[in-house]
Amino acid sequence: MEAIKENGTALFVTTVLKNWSLQATRVNELIEGLSDEDLAKEVAPGRNTGIYLLGHLVAVHDGIRPLLGLGEKRYPEFEAMFIRSADTPNAEYPSLAVLRKYWTEVNTDLWNHFSTISPEDWLSRHTAVTPEVFANEPHRNKINIVLNRTGHLAYHHGQLVFLKKK
Amino acid sequence: MEAIKENGTALFVTTVLKNWSLQATRVNELIEGLSDEDLAKEVAPGRNTGIYLLGHLVAVHDGIRPLLGLGEKRYPEFEAMFIRSADTPNAEYPSLAVLRKYWTEVNTDLWNHFSTISPEDWLSRHTAVTPEVFANEPHRNKINIVLNRTGHLAYHHGQLVFLKKK
Repeated sequence: MEAIKENGTALFVTTVLKNWSLQATRVNELIEGLSDEDLAKEVAPGRNTGIYLLGHLVAVHDGIRPLLGLGEKRYPEFEAMFIRSADTPNAEYPSLAVLRKYWTEVNTDLWNHFSTISPEDWLSRHTAVTPEVFANEPHRNKINIVLNRTGHLAYHHGQLVFLKKK
Repeated sequence: MEAIKENGTALFVTTVLKNWSLQATRVNELIEGLSDEDLAKEVAPGRNTGIYLLGHLVAVHDGIRPLLGLGEKRYPEFEAMFIRSADTPNAEYPSLAVLRKYWTEVNTDLWNHFSTISPEDWLSRHTAVTPEVFANEPHRNKINIVLNRTGHLAYHHGQLVFLKKK
């Protein structure tokens, strides 16, 4: 039990990151199995297209970089297109070749950074919360960003799966 | 930093449970805002109905009880109906009044138990993994069940939201 106490925080980090990885792998496998034609469709009548959702996921995952202090966004122009704007018919979105490439890149980059963050640093504040607020709300830490974004990914996974033929 | 190390596991637990709670609250608000007529519809053409998904979520959350050693399932008959069987037109499902009640009950009960589990116990094995396997895969612990089921809930939340009118 002493070993668990000593290594507890490291084991928590491992458990959280494995859940992130599991969810990301599921979405990667789904997207790789979908054709560009599949992804051009709406996931349900009148709802977002696969293209928009893939761009949205790239934009949200790209936003994890500055939140964790890992660097600036790689694709800052995606925020206006895929977060602040809704899916728009006839919008000039990047090609699926580009979106698929960025999706792989942003996640590979995040994963490489994740492995360098210590358990103590995971429990430190993320950049969108002030030190004053963080003093009273210590759960608004970096690992919370990973937990929250894993849930966000699962949410849209549940929608993208409708692009698969039954 | 010493305080963080000492209290690190407790803070991790708090952070994970707050994410569970946030996700559960979102789904509760969605379901409360949907009429029985809304929930009787398919979330997308040819996909599960809201009734089935609500029963499925009750069944999966009920399954958390034995996995964490909190007791037997409250609604064991739900497994055959909502996990092992697909959504079936004309199936005799419990009424939405019952499903809504069970959904509240199963989550209230889980939440009451969650607060009694110590950080060390959260890192102990869940009942579906053997001690031998757990020795090599210590991330297959109780908190992992909460992480996994939070993702599962988010996945179906992304689908149930399509029952809301745009």
